[in-house]
Amino acid sequence: MDPGSLVYIGSDRYQAPGILVYHYDETGCVKEQLDLSFNWNHFQLKKEKAWITIDGIHDPQLIGAVGHCFRIDQLTLEDIMNTHSRPKLEVNDHYYFACLKALDIQPDFPLALEQFSLVVLDKVVIAFQEQNGDSFHVLRQKLDTGVGKVRQSNSFYLAYLMLDTLVDDYLVATENLAKRIELIESMLTKQIQQHQLKALLKIRRELFDFKLATDPTKEITGLLSKDKETGIRKYFIDLHDHMLFVGDQIQFQREIVSNSLDLYHAMSSDKTNQVMRLLTIITTIFVPLTFIVGVYGMNFENMPELKWTNGYYLTWAVMAIITLLQLRWFRKNRWI
Amino acid sequence: MDPGSLVYIGSDRYQAPGILVYHYDETGCVKEQLDLSFNWNHFQLKKEKAWITIDGIHDPQLIGAVGHCFRIDQLTLEDIMNTHSRPKLEVNDHYYFACLKALDIQPDFPLALEQFSLVVLDKVVIAFQEQNGDSFHVLRQKLDTGVGKVRQSNSFYLAYLMLDTLVDDYLVATENLAKRIELIESMLTKQIQQHQLKALLKIRRELFDFKLATDPTKEITGLLSKDKETGIRKYFIDLHDHMLFVGDQIQFQREIVSNSLDLYHAMSSDKTNQVMRLLTIITTIFVPLTFIVGVYGMNFENMPELKWTNGYYLTWAVMAIITLLQLRWFRKNRWI
Amino acid sequence: MDPGSLVYIGSDRYQAPGILVYHYDETGCVKEQLDLSFNWNHFQLKKEKAWITIDGIHDPQLIGAVGHCFRIDQLTLEDIMNTHSRPKLEVNDHYYFACLKALDIQPDFPLALEQFSLVVLDKVVIAFQEQNGDSFHVLRQKLDTGVGKVRQSNSFYLAYLMLDTLVDDYLVATENLAKRIELIESMLTKQIQQHQLKALLKIRRELFDFKLATDPTKEITGLLSKDKETGIRKYFIDLHDHMLFVGDQIQFQREIVSNSLDLYHAMSSDKTNQVMRLLTIITTIFVPLTFIVGVYGMNFENMPELKWTNGYYLTWAVMAIITLLQLRWFRKNRWI
Amino acid sequence: MDPGSLVYIGSDRYQAPGILVYHYDETGCVKEQLDLSFNWNHFQLKKEKAWITIDGIHDPQLIGAVGHCFRIDQLTLEDIMNTHSRPKLEVNDHYYFACLKALDIQPDFPLALEQFSLVVLDKVVIAFQEQNGDSFHVLRQKLDTGVGKVRQSNSFYLAYLMLDTLVDDYLVATENLAKRIELIESMLTKQIQQHQLKALLKIRRELFDFKLATDPTKEITGLLSKDKETGIRKYFIDLHDHMLFVGDQIQFQREIVSNSLDLYHAMSSDKTNQVMRLLTIITTIFVPLTFIVGVYGMNFENMPELKWTNGYYLTWAVMAIITLLQLRWFRKNRWI
Amino acid sequence: MDPGSLVYIGSDRYQAPGILVYHYDETGCVKEQLDLSFNWNHFQLKKEKAWITIDGIHDPQLIGAVGHCFRIDQLTLEDIMNTHSRPKLEVNDHYYFACLKALDIQPDFPLALEQFSLVVLDKVVIAFQEQNGDSFHVLRQKLDTGVGKVRQSNSFYLAYLMLDTLVDDYLVATENLAKRIELIESMLTKQIQQHQLKALLKIRRELFDFKLATDPTKEITGLLSKDKETGIRKYFIDLHDHMLFVGDQIQFQREIVSNSLDLYHAMSSDKTNQVMRLLTIITTIFVPLTFIVGVYGMNFENMPELKWTNGYYLTWAVMAIITLLQLRWFRKNRWI
Repeated sequence: MDPGSLVYIGSDRYQAPGILVYHYDETGCVKEQLDLSFNWNHFQLKKEKAWITIDGIHDPQLIGAVGHCFRIDQLTLEDIMNTHSRPKLEVNDHYYFACLKALDIQPDFPLALEQFSLVVLDKVVIAFQEQNGDSFHVLRQKLDTGVGKVRQSNSFYLAYLMLDTLVDDYLVATENLAKRIELIESMLTKQIQQHQLKALLKIRRELFDFKLATDPTKEITGLLSKDKETGIRKYFIDLHDHMLFVGDQIQFQREIVSNSLDLYHAMSSDKTNQVMRLLTIITTIFVPLTFIVGVYGMNFENMPELKWTNGYYLTWAVMAIITLLQLRWFRKNRWI
Repeated sequence: MDPGSLVYIGSDRYQAPGILVYHYDETGCVKEQLDLSFNWNHFQLKKEKAWITIDGIHDPQLIGAVGHCFRIDQLTLEDIMNTHSRPKLEVNDHYYFACLKALDIQPDFPLALEQFSLVVLDKVVIAFQEQNGDSFHVLRQKLDTGVGKVRQSNSFYLAYLMLDTLVDDYLVATENLAKRIELIESMLTKQIQQHQLKALLKIRRELFDFKLATDPTKEITGLLSKDKETGIRKYFIDLHDHMLFVGDQIQFQREIVSNSLDLYHAMSSDKTNQVMRLLTIITTIFVPLTFIVGVYGMNFENMPELKWTNGYYLTWAVMAIITLLQLRWFRKNRWI
Repeated sequence: MDPGSLVYIGSDRYQAPGILVYHYDETGCVKEQLDLSFNWNHFQLKKEKAWITIDGIHDPQLIGAVGHCFRIDQLTLEDIMNTHSRPKLEVNDHYYFACLKALDIQPDFPLALEQFSLVVLDKVVIAFQEQNGDSFHVLRQKLDTGVGKVRQSNSFYLAYLMLDTLVDDYLVATENLAKRIELIESMLTKQIQQHQLKALLKIRRELFDFKLATDPTKEITGLLSKDKETGIRKYFIDLHDHMLFVGDQIQFQREIVSNSLDLYHAMSSDKTNQVMRLLTIITTIFVPLTFIVGVYGMNFENMPELKWTNGYYLTWAVMAIITLLQLRWFRKNRWI
Repeated sequence: MDPGSLVYIGSDRYQAPGILVYHYDETGCVKEQLDLSFNWNHFQLKKEKAWITIDGIHDPQLIGAVGHCFRIDQLTLEDIMNTHSRPKLEVNDHYYFACLKALDIQPDFPLALEQFSLVVLDKVVIAFQEQNGDSFHVLRQKLDTGVGKVRQSNSFYLAYLMLDTLVDDYLVATENLAKRIELIESMLTKQIQQHQLKALLKIRRELFDFKLATDPTKEITGLLSKDKETGIRKYFIDLHDHMLFVGDQIQFQREIVSNSLDLYHAMSSDKTNQVMRLLTIITTIFVPLTFIVGVYGMNFENMPELKWTNGYYLTWAVMAIITLLQLRWFRKNRWI
Repeated sequence: MDPGSLVYIGSDRYQAPGILVYHYDETGCVKEQLDLSFNWNHFQLKKEKAWITIDGIHDPQLIGAVGHCFRIDQLTLEDIMNTHSRPKLEVNDHYYFACLKALDIQPDFPLALEQFSLVVLDKVVIAFQEQNGDSFHVLRQKLDTGVGKVRQSNSFYLAYLMLDTLVDDYLVATENLAKRIELIESMLTKQIQQHQLKALLKIRRELFDFKLATDPTKEITGLLSKDKETGIRKYFIDLHDHMLFVGDQIQFQREIVSNSLDLYHAMSSDKTNQVMRLLTIITTIFVPLTFIVGVYGMNFENMPELKWTNGYYLTWAVMAIITLLQLRWFRKNRWI
C-alpha cells in the first residue's frame, strides 16, 4: 500500500457519514447539513468562521474531497482514516492536526475508545469522529445561542473547547472506573468469589489501555500549553493541568486495583487456612477416639477390661477427658 | 461549562465562609472580620500590607468579588473553587498563584487532604481554605505580637511561612503514619489476623494518595527555590529541602508497608504449615494403630493370636513401640 | 579476529545467495538476476537508479566484492554479516547504513527474527537479507508497473518503503501474538492446565525478545524522523508513529500476559481450595459417624444400649441428625 | 517557629558538647580544648589554619555563638541542629556547607545513622557531630605528626579527608551487611525458620534506609567532583567513584536479600509439600487396609470367608500385596 | 590512609608479578621479559611503540616504579591496585586511564570477575591484570607476525583490540550463562527439584553481578565512541555496539531466569495439588466404606440385617455402587 493512500482501518461501519457545518462569527451562526454528494470544490464560508463535523471516517472519497478542499496532507488524511492511530499532534504549514481517543461514557461498562481527529485551520475547524455521537451538544448550544466567548474567539478556542470536553469525559471515565472498583472491593470484604478476580483483572487491563491512550494525550496538551502561536495559551495550560490530573487518577486506580488483588489473594489463602483448620480439628479429635473404641472392639479372649462392670463407662470418661483437653488446647491457640 | 466559569467542585458545604483580614506593617497590625455582604469594591488597606484568609470556597459570588477586586484571572478563580485541582504554581503578571493540599492532622486517622490556594500579590496575600481550620494560629500570633520578621518582610515571606506550616504538617502526618504502621507490625509478630492485612493495605493506599499530593508540591517548592524574584530564595531552598525529606519519608513508609505485607504473607503460610503438620502427626500416629486394632477386631474363626494369653498385651506393646519410633522420627525432624 | 574481517556469524546456511537488481527510473524498470560469479568491478547502472537485493549474507567473498564496489566501510560489512548485530543506524560519508530485524510471519508460530541490513547510497539501495524471502513482492510490483511514486522518488523513498513493510510486519506479528494469548486465555477460563502456563511463559519470552528488537528500531525511526537530509522527512515521521504504536502494542501484550499469569495462579490455588474442601467435607461427615459405630462395636460385657430393642435404630437416628446438622452448616457457609 | 530559629531536633542528649580546635599550618599543629563557657567573640587562630570539631549539636547557645563568630547563616545553623536534615551541599558566599550521615560501625548490628555537618571556610573547617565519636583519630594523628599533605593543603583537603573517612565507613558497613546476609543464607540452606525471614526483612529495611542516606550523598560528591573552586577536584572525583561503588554495593545487597527471600518462600512451600506427602502416603496405605479389616469385623451371620481355615492368612496376604503395589507406585513417582 | 597511597585491596596473591614488554613498530617487534628487580628509571623504548603487560597488581613497589617512570598520577595508581574499583574512564593530561572487569571464562562455572586496568600513553600502552592469564594470545601473535594493522596503528588501536577481546569474553560469558539456564530449564520440565531453584537463584545473582560490572563499561565505551581524540572513533563505535548487545543479552537472560523461576513455582504448586488430589480421592472413597462396614460391626442384639442370608453380599453391592459413582464423578471432573 502506498503511503498516503486513503484506506479505512477499523471495525466495519455501514452507516453513511453525517456532515454538519456551523458557519459563525460575532454576528450569528448558520447551521448547514451537507450530504455525501456535496461538491466540496464549491464549499464556501457563509460567515467568517466555520466548524465542520464529520461523523464517520470510513468513506475514502469524502475524506479525500474534504482533504483536497482544505489542502490537507495525504499522510494526515491517512491518519484520520486509521482508527489505530496513536494520539499525536502535528503542526503543519497552514494547519494543526491532532488525533486523540474519544470515550463513549457508559457507567458500569468497559471503556470504549474511539478515534477523534481535529484539523485546525485559520478560519475553519474540522472534527472527524468514528461514530455518530453527541459529545459536543453543549458546544453546539453555545454557538447557537452565542453564550460564552466562542463566537468571538479564534479557531483554537473552538478546538480547545472540544478537547476540554474530551478531557472531561476522561475524568468521568476514571470516576466510573473508581465506582466499579469500589463495588468489587466492598463485595470482596464479605465473601471472595472467582468472578471478582476476573472483574479486577479486566479493569486492570482497561486501565492499562486507558493509560496507553492518555499518556500521548498528555504530551499533546503539554505541547499546546507551551505553544504561543495559538493565542490562548492559558486555556491550554489549564487543559494540561486537567490531563495531568487524569494521569494521576489512572495511576491511583491502578494502585487500588493492585491493592484489591492483594486482598483477594490474602483472603483466598485465608479461606484455605480455615478449611484446613476445620479438617485438622475434626481429625485430631476423632481419630484418637476411634482408635480407643477400636481397641475394645478387638476379639482377644483375654482382655480383662471387657469384663469390668464399669469398663464401658470408664472408656467414655477417658474419651471425654481427651476431647476436653483437646478443645482446651484448640481454644488456647485460638483455633476455635 | 465555559472555561473560567465559577463553579464549586467538591463535597457539599453549608457553612457560610469566614473572611478575616490582617492589615499589618512594621508599625502594627489591625484585625478585621468581614461578612459575606461586604462590598469588595470598597476594600482598602488600613496598613501597608494585608493578609486575607477566606475559609470556604463554595460561594461563587464571594470568590468572584474578591477575584475582581484584586484582578485575579478567571481561570485561577476556577482552580481555587475546584477541590480536585492538582497542586501547581502559576506565575502571572502581577501575582503568584499556588494551589496545594493541606492536611487535617489527627493521629490514628486516615489522612484528610484539603484544597489550599494562595494568591500572592505585591502587598496582599490571599489564602483560600476549604474549611474553617486553625493551622495558622502561630502565624497569627506572630502578626499580633510582632515577634519574628514577618511584619517587616514582604508578601512572599508571609506566603513562605504558610507553606512552611503546611510542609511541617506533612512531616507530622508521615510520623503518624509511621506510628500506625509500627503498631500493626508489633501486633503482627504476635499473631496475624486479617484485619491487620486490611489496615496495611489501607495505609498503602493512603501513602499513595499522599505521594500523589506531595510529588507536585515538591515541584512547586523546587520552582520557588530557583525563583530569584521572591527576594527570599534561601527560605524557599530550605522549604524545598523539607519537601524532599517528606518525599523520602513517604518512600520509606511505602517500603516498610511492603515489608510488613511480606511478613504477613510469610506468617500466614507458616500458620498453614503448622496446621498441616499437626494434622499429619495425628494421622500418622493413629491411622496405623487403628489398623492394628482393626485386625484383631476381625471375626475369623481361625485367628491363633486371639487365643494367646498375652495377645492383648503384646498388641499394646507393638503399638507402643510403633508410636515411640514415630515420635522419635518427628523429634529428629524437628516437627515436635 | 581483526576488526572489519568478514566472518559470517549466525546459524548455518548452505543455499547459495541470490542477487537481484532492479534498474529503474521514471522511464521504466529493468530486472537483472546476477549469479555469484558476477564481477562486481564491472557493475553499471542501466537506468538512473538501482535497487540491489542480496538474499544470503554468509558468503564473505560476495559481501566483500559488493562492499568494495560501492566503497562500503569494512566495519559496516562486518555488521552486515553478523546476524547478532543490534538494530542501529549509521550515517557515513556517502551512505546511510541501517540494520534491523525482519520478521518471518507465521500465525500460531513463535516469532522468527532475521537480520536485515540496508545500505542507502545516492542512487543505489542495497538490501541484505539472511534468507530468501518475499516480503517485498508488493514493492517489486510497484517498480515493475510504475504504480505509486517510487520510480520518481529518491533512494530514501525506496528505503522508506522497505522499512514500512518491515514495520507493518511487526504490527501483524503483534496481532498474531494477541490472538495466541486470547486463545490461551479463553481456554484458561474453562479449565487450567500446565501447558497453558508454559505457553504463556513462552509468549512472555517472545514478547521480551521482540521488545529487545524493536526498542532500538524505535530509536532508528526517531533519528530518521528528525533527519532533514533525506528529503522525505514527513514519511519517516509517519513511520516513527507506527513504530511507537508497535511499542505500545508490545507493552500492552506484556500486560495482558501478566494478567493471564495472575489468573492462572489464582485459578490454580482456587482448584486446590476446592480439593481441600471436598476432603474436609467427607472427613468431617464420616469420621464422627465411624467413631459412633466404633463405640457400639466394642465388646464390653456390660453395655446396656446393646440390649435395647431399638438401640440400632436410635443409633441410625442420631447419626442422621448429626449428618443433617453438618450439611446445614456446610450449606450456610456456602461450601456445598 | 520562625525560620532560622535554633532548636535541636533529634533524640535526647544530656552530655555536654565537647569542643576541640586544631590550629595548624606547615610549621606545626597546636591542640586546644575549649569549654562551653568560652567566649567565641575572642576566638583567634593560633596558626594559619584551624579545624574545629564540635561533638554535640543540642546546645543552641553554643551553635549560635559559633555561627555568629564565623558569620554562618541562621538557616544553615538550623540545619546543623536538625538530625533529620537530608544530606545536602550548599555553596554560600564565603563558605561551603555539607550535611551528611555518619555511620556508627558495629559488626552484626543494625546501621546507626548519625547527623554530620561540615562548614568549610577559607581558613577554618568546622565539623559538627551528633555524638562523641572517634572516626577521625587517624586524621588527628596526621595533623599531630605532620604525615601526609594535610598541613600543607587548603581547607577543602581537610574536608575531603573527613568525607573520605565517612565514605570508607559506608564501605565497611556494606561489607558487614553482606556478612550478615551470608550468615542467614547459609543457615537457610540447612533449615528454614521464621526468625531468618524476620532478619532478612530487617536487613532489607536497613538497606533501604542506607540507600536513602547515600543517594543524596552521591549527589553531593558528584557536585564536588565538578567544582573547580576547591582546587583539589581530582580527589573529589576519586571520592565520587567510591560513592558510586557504595551505591552499587547497596543495590547488590538488595538483590541478594530479595534472592534469599525467594529462597525462603520456595523452601517453605517445599516443606509444606513434604508434610503433605507424608500425610498422603500414610493415609493412602492404611485407609484401604483399615477398610479391609473392617469388612471382616462385620457381624453378619452368613459370611463364608470367616469360616475358611486360611481366611485370616489370606487377608494378610491380600493386604501385603496391596501395600507392596502402593509402595512401588510411590517409589516410581519418587515420593519415597 | 592518605589518598594516593599504594595499598593492594583484593584477595591474597603470593605469586610474583610477571612483566612483559613488546617493543614494536612497522618494522618489527621485540619481546622483552623484565623481572621485579628491573630499574624502571632506565626503561627505554627499543622500537617506536611499546606494550607493557603487568600480571599481578599486589606489589606496591613495582606499581609505584612504573607509575613514576610514566608519570602516572598517584590516584590512578591507587585505583589500579584496588580490585574493588568500579569500571571507569579517566582522561588525564598525557594519558587515558580505563579500569574494567575482565572475565575468566570457564563453561558451567560461575563468572569470575577480575580487575583489568589500562593506561594509554602516546607511544606506550600499559595493561595491569590481577592474575596471570592468556586472554591476549591472539593479539600477541598479531604483533609477532605483523598480521593486521596493529603494528602500523597508534596506541589507541592496541587498546581497542584489548577492549574488544574483553567484550568478546563478555559475549561468550552470556552464552555460557544461557546454556546453563537452558539446561536447568529442560530438567525443570521433567521434574522439579530444589537444587534447580538454588541454581537459578545463583545464576540470577551472577547476572546481577555481571550487570553491575558491564553497566559502567557501557558508559566507558559510550564515551570512547564520542571521543574524536583517539583517531579511531569508528572502531570504538563498533565496540560500543557490542557492549550494548552484551547489555541486551544480560537483560534477556534475567528475563529468562525470572521466567524459569515462575515456572518452578507453578510446577511446585501443581505438585502439591496432585498430592492433595490423591489424598482426597483415597479418603473420599474409603472413609464412607469404612463407615458402612463399621455399622455392621456393631454388636446390637437387635440388628435385622445381620440375620439376612444375603446381608453380607448386599453390603458389598452397596459399597461397589458407591465406589463406582464416586469414580465416575472423579472422571467427570478429570481428577483421574
